Amino acid sequence: MSIIVQKYGGTSVVDAERIQAVATRVGASKNAGNQVVVVVSAMSGETNRLLDLAKTISKRPSRREIDVLLATGEQVTIALLCMALHQLGLKAISYTGSQVKILTDNAHSKARILSIDESKIIRDLDKDHIVVIAGFQGVDEHGNITTLGRGGSDTSAVALAAALNADECQIYTDVDGVYTTDPRVVPEARRMAHITFEEMLEMASSGSKVLQIRAVEFAGKYNVPLRVLSSFEQGDGTLISLEENNMEDAVISGIAFTKDEAQLTIRGIPDEPGIAYKILGPIADADIEVDMIVQNASQESYANFTFTISRNDLDSAKEILQKIKDELGAEEVVHNSNIAKVSLVGVGMRSHAGIASKMFAALAAENINILMISTSEIKISVIVDEKYLELVVRTLHHTFDLADESQN
Amino acid sequence: MSIIVQKYGGTSVVDAERIQAVATRVGASKNAGNQVVVVVSAMSGETNRLLDLAKTISKRPSRREIDVLLATGEQVTIALLCMALHQLGLKAISYTGSQVKILTDNAHSKARILSIDESKIIRDLDKDHIVVIAGFQGVDEHGNITTLGRGGSDTSAVALAAALNADECQIYTDVDGVYTTDPRVVPEARRMAHITFEEMLEMASSGSKVLQIRAVEFAGKYNVPLRVLSSFEQGDGTLISLEENNMEDAVISGIAFTKDEAQLTIRGIPDEPGIAYKILGPIADADIEVDMIVQNASQESYANFTFTISRNDLDSAKEILQKIKDELGAEEVVHNSNIAKVSLVGVGMRSHAGIASKMFAALAAENINILMISTSEIKISVIVDEKYLELVVRTLHHTFDLADESQN
Repeated sequence: MSIIVQKYGGTSVVDAERIQAVATRVGASKNAGNQVVVVVSAMSGETNRLLDLAKTISKRPSRREIDVLLATGEQVTIALLCMALHQLGLKAISYTGSQVKILTDNAHSKARILSIDESKIIRDLDKDHIVVIAGFQGVDEHGNITTLGRGGSDTSAVALAAALNADECQIYTDVDGVYTTDPRVVPEARRMAHITFEEMLEMASSGSKVLQIRAVEFAGKYNVPLRVLSSFEQGDGTLISLEENNMEDAVISGIAFTKDEAQLTIRGIPDEPGIAYKILGPIADADIEVDMIVQNASQESYANFTFTISRNDLDSAKEILQKIKDELGAEEVVHNSNIAKVSLVGVGMRSHAGIASKMFAALAAENINILMISTSEIKISVIVDEKYLELVVRTLHHTFDLADESQN
Repeated sequence: MSIIVQKYGGTSVVDAERIQAVATRVGASKNAGNQVVVVVSAMSGETNRLLDLAKTISKRPSRREIDVLLATGEQVTIALLCMALHQLGLKAISYTGSQVKILTDNAHSKARILSIDESKIIRDLDKDHIVVIAGFQGVDEHGNITTLGRGGSDTSAVALAAALNADECQIYTDVDGVYTTDPRVVPEARRMAHITFEEMLEMASSGSKVLQIRAVEFAGKYNVPLRVLSSFEQGDGTLISLEENNMEDAVISGIAFTKDEAQLTIRGIPDEPGIAYKILGPIADADIEVDMIVQNASQESYANFTFTISRNDLDSAKEILQKIKDELGAEEVVHNSNIAKVSLVGVGMRSHAGIASKMFAALAAENINILMISTSEIKISVIVDEKYLELVVRTLHHTFDLADESQN
């Protein structure tokens, strides 16, 4: 008998009707002979409703109490889903994060899972129950309620699948799988049947919103086969697993993009050792994550130093740089928030030379200026002016034949 | 330093503004030098909202899952109240029923408290924290979430006060104390400064809605001084405690009444031993509680058997009696739901004869027919036609001089 963990997000459980539809789907998997564990999020809108309540009382509410507050969202869903499963004549039992001891550290609002006590779950599965567990939440060693941060239900599901040694972790969402790129930008974008953990990780960290990075990392670490499917339509979705031989044919899997970044440049700094550290040290101290970095020496031993950060952090970063500008002997600090990042992802890149040059040639043919470039073993990212974003994505999708079904 | 347990009901925490007002009141008690534990209910309306959600999914939802669902109501309130206390610069920490191990039996939706682990609470009080605890909920020995039933937050507060050996348990509500009778019926009704546990218990079980019976029983059993106050106005409210000498002056403390009952009569049954059991056995088996019972033998060894029950149970009780009517050899079953029960309560009755005759004389003078009578050591109850209710209450209030301030 297979153990399947299914995770349903907020839009899949937004009202009674949708919850009943989820119950039907869960029941089908159970009746097909699987042992089924279900992880659910709060009903869509509920988390924001609770946060709004908190904001009317305090501008900076305690993170411990925010977690107590938000954890009620999933608790409501697990109870309602069990009732819907009972209506279908199925045995089902609900558990909060505390009840199955999803032990986390005590970093309220962004806790990390340390362990799960799977004994209760296994006992109930063996008694033919469907086990319904609140996602997004856990408990620290002192019994305080913690939450994993937005999207944490994906992580809960993968962690449970790992603890239970499940055969598959199915993430039900409002899209029917992972696409070669966003179909709203490129209509001929194609749903991928398979993708590797590594590729999915690069896609997610480059802007694809389908799955949370932490959930993919977790799945890769424990080799939990992950499947993304639609809660609303039938279909096989996209399976995310370890690299397989038949995947090597595809050089490029997909194109991810994001407009969430901003670029900062410090002009005219003395080209001396230690400059990068002097600039990025204070930035890191302020908990600002830096993505791409370029340092180009110019004439007369002066250099320009450019890096990108999340657009949300732009104001704080600018403030820090203004403070250290004189100390660095820099000329000026400029920024650009009208940028977009486009990333080409594929494990096949490892064994194929010339991907980068093919990419740059295609962009040059369209007269698109590349502002920054960064590469990893299975990814090439470029920063371009935001207004070219759609053009770049479409051009690359076409250049690398991603719509071609035979690639899959 | 005194330990005070304060309990605020749903209307006292219905929105952010009210929660802030509660925080101010709690803070005042803390700043006056007390160690304060606060027990809160769900925001008014929230429990019904959750029950409605459940009903859209299932007509007979599992009681275990209903408890999981409803327990979120108080969890929201404890988090919000802590945020409001923090805003006032006070240290505060919230706990669910599970977190402070309010251990109950496993009778979901009407669980009884078995014990409380007070260690965490005492540790936090000693660290100068206000401890905010979710009322109405607990946890069974297997870690399942339980609830105590409607109004259970009063019981939570009293149980916590008993466990902490608190100096006073203050129940904040939307009335400013316990009155000699309902001021909507008798405008000159007077707030009592003191009342005994026994009297309060009789008042509550006779229809006074101010406090839950179980909470008063609990307080009496553990001798926890209980005070009923208004959350909206200043004032000393009513203190409920053990009998004191100065209380003996008052013969009658108050008048309670209810229209929640219905009367059932089985006519023409053979007047034989065991008849009462044959009738009330099946009623008890159906979990229907019987209040007053009268059996009057009539001529020719046939008797009439009359009893009262909660009006909600009338249909089920009628059904049961129809089934056993022939077996009993009874003539017919009749019912009357247009009745009201009025009860005169007072510990002074014990030492004063003639209260009953004074009461009956007053009603006779008004030409009011008494349908049934029942007495206890400190209470006399009569059943009258519902249309006379207000007249009976006003007459008795006047007859026993309850508006007289010197009684207090």
